[in-house]
Amino acid sequence: MLVRNAMVTRPRVTAERNVGAIAVSCRVRLARNLVDAPFPDWADESARRRIVDQAASWLAQKAGLSGAHVVPVGELDEATRALLCERHLISHDLADRGAGSGLVVSDDERVSVMINEEDHFRIQVISPGMDLQRAWEVADAIDTRMDQHFHYAFSPKLGYLTACPSNVGTGLRASVMVHLLGLRLTNDLESVLRALERLHLAVRGVGGEGSQAAGHMFQISNQETLGSDESSLIGNLLDVVGDVVHQERNARLRLLRNTPEVLLDCVARALAVIQSARIMESEEALDYLSALRLGVEMQLLRRMTIDEVESLVLNIQPGHLQKRLGQVLEAPRRDIVRADFMREMLAKVALRA
Amino acid sequence: MLVRNAMVTRPRVTAERNVGAIAVSCRVRLARNLVDAPFPDWADESARRRIVDQAASWLAQKAGLSGAHVVPVGELDEATRALLCERHLISHDLADRGAGSGLVVSDDERVSVMINEEDHFRIQVISPGMDLQRAWEVADAIDTRMDQHFHYAFSPKLGYLTACPSNVGTGLRASVMVHLLGLRLTNDLESVLRALERLHLAVRGVGGEGSQAAGHMFQISNQETLGSDESSLIGNLLDVVGDVVHQERNARLRLLRNTPEVLLDCVARALAVIQSARIMESEEALDYLSALRLGVEMQLLRRMTIDEVESLVLNIQPGHLQKRLGQVLEAPRRDIVRADFMREMLAKVALRA
Repeated sequence: MLVRNAMVTRPRVTAERNVGAIAVSCRVRLARNLVDAPFPDWADESARRRIVDQAASWLAQKAGLSGAHVVPVGELDEATRALLCERHLISHDLADRGAGSGLVVSDDERVSVMINEEDHFRIQVISPGMDLQRAWEVADAIDTRMDQHFHYAFSPKLGYLTACPSNVGTGLRASVMVHLLGLRLTNDLESVLRALERLHLAVRGVGGEGSQAAGHMFQISNQETLGSDESSLIGNLLDVVGDVVHQERNARLRLLRNTPEVLLDCVARALAVIQSARIMESEEALDYLSALRLGVEMQLLRRMTIDEVESLVLNIQPGHLQKRLGQVLEAPRRDIVRADFMREMLAKVALRA
Repeated sequence: MLVRNAMVTRPRVTAERNVGAIAVSCRVRLARNLVDAPFPDWADESARRRIVDQAASWLAQKAGLSGAHVVPVGELDEATRALLCERHLISHDLADRGAGSGLVVSDDERVSVMINEEDHFRIQVISPGMDLQRAWEVADAIDTRMDQHFHYAFSPKLGYLTACPSNVGTGLRASVMVHLLGLRLTNDLESVLRALERLHLAVRGVGGEGSQAAGHMFQISNQETLGSDESSLIGNLLDVVGDVVHQERNARLRLLRNTPEVLLDCVARALAVIQSARIMESEEALDYLSALRLGVEMQLLRRMTIDEVESLVLNIQPGHLQKRLGQVLEAPRRDIVRADFMREMLAKVALRA
C-alpha cells in the first residue's frame, strides 16, 4: 500500500484555467577555480588580469557560448556595470571588483562566464520557465570543455574547491525564479516561505543574496553543494518548486473564485498609479509591474503582454534608464524620468471591461 | 529699537496666489455642570435620564439654537451613533454611554449641546474657517441663557467646575482644524507639530482626543482652561494657528515653485487610485481625499469643488455609508461599497491639462 500510495502522483497543474507561468526563469551556476592560481580575493591585480587575459578570449571562442563576446567589467563605467547587474549577467560583487574582472556572454545573454568574481569562473546558464534540466546540460557541456582546457582545482574527496566553503563539492547552485503575488494576496506567502526555509532551501529576491524580493519575485535555490550529485540536487529543487508553483496556482484560482475584487483591486490600482504618477522609485515600480504581470496572466488587461512587462522590468531600473538617456542622473531625477517613461509606455493599457 | 521691532507685523498671508483656506473650520466648546446633581460618571441611569428629560426640550426651545431638535442618543442604533460621531455632533465617549445621554442640535448642525457626556452639558459651536470669535460669541450667548435657567456648578475661585480637572476654570476648549498636506509634502510637518507641542497646544486628529490625523487634518486647541480669560485663550490660539497657516501656505507656494512634480504626483496618484480601487478603507480614503482637497485648492483638478470633497469626507465613513444603504455591513464589505461609491462619485474628475 505504501508503495502504491507513493506512486500516486498529484497533478501539479490545475487545468481549470490558465493562470500564468509562475516559474519565470531558472538558472544553473557552476563555481570553478584554477589549481595553479590563488583565489581572486587572495590574488593581486596583475595575477587577476593574467587570468582574464588568458581565459576570456578562449572562453568566447572555444567554450561553446554561441556568438559570445568579452566584456571588460573592470573597465566599465558605473552605469554600464549597473546595467549588467540588472540583466543578471554579473553579480553586484563582480560589479564592485574593479580591475582584473571580466565577463564572457553569449549573444542571447542566456549563457555567461564571470571571471574573477569570488571564484575564478562562474558559469551561468539561464532558461525560461522551469527547464533546469536544459540549463544544467548546457552548463555541464561548457564545464566539460573548460575542464579539458584548464586545470581545475579538484579534490577526489571533496569535489570542486571554491573560495567559499559553502560552494565546495559540486560548485552548483540551481535556482528558479517564481512570481508569488497570488500567495501574497491570499495572505499565505509567509507560511510558504517559512516552509521553504525548513526544507533548507534558500529564498532570495531577484538581485540574489541579501536582496529584497521586489516585485514579489523569489529565487528559490539549493543551499547545499556537498554530498549530493548534480542530478539529485536539481531533481529535489524541481520537486519543491513544483509544489510552490502548485500553491501559487491554487491561490490565484481561489482569488478568482472567492475574492475577485482583491485581484482586480491590486491590478487596477497598479495600472492607475503607473499611468498617473509623476515620481516613481524602482522598488515601487517593480511592485506595480508585478501586479500587471499577474493582470496579464489572469486576462484582466488589454493591450499588454508578458514580454512588455519583462522589458519594462529591465528598462525602468537605474542602469537601463541612464543608458537609454545617455546620461548619469541623480536618484530624484531618475524617479521623475522613470515615472514619465512608464506613463508613456503604458498609456494605452486598459482593464478588460 | 526693541519696541519698534516688536511692532513690525509680519504679513500672515502671502498674496502671490490663492492656495486654499488651510484653516477648514473652528470650534468652541464649553463644559458646564449642574450644581445639584452628581457628574454623569457618578450618577445612576435614572439620575442621568432626569437631567436629559428636564434639560433637552428646554435647550431645544429656549437656549437659542435655531431650529433645534432633540436626539435621544442613548436609544439610537450603532450606525446612527457612528454617523453622529462622523459629523462631529457627538463624541465617541457620548456614543458609547447608552441610556441617559442626549443631544440637542440646531438645524444647520453648527450649534449643539451634548447632555451627560463627561459633563452635564457640552455646548459646541462650529464656524467655517478661523472665525473663532463668532463661534465664541454664539456659545457665550447660549451659555448666558443656560446660566439664567440652570444652576451651574461654579466656584468664585476656580471658575466652572467640571468632571475632569483639565477643564476646570473657563471650561473652554477652542480649536481650529487645519489641513497640512503641503507641510507633509515638503517634509516640514514634524517640526511644525513639535513646535506646537512646545507652545503647550494640543494637536489631534479629526476625531478628537487620541485619534490619528487621517487626511492630514489637525485640530489645534488650547490645553489650559485655568488662569486665562476666554478672550485671551482664543486670541493666543488664533495667533499660533495664523502662524501655522502661514507656514502651510509657504509650503504650498514652495511646492509650486520648486517641486511641482511632488504636488502633481500626490494629486494625480490620489485621483487615479480613487478612480480605480475596488477595495478602500476609510483612513486611506481620507488621505486620498486630502490630496484631492489640495488639488482643488491649487487649481490642479477639473470638475471638482471643495464642497464635493467635504461631502465625500462625510459620506465615505462607515456610519454614513451604512445609513445611505440602509443596512449594516461588515468592514470588508464596506470597503468594497466605499470603493464603488468613490469611483462613481469621482468618475468625471480629471487633472487639468
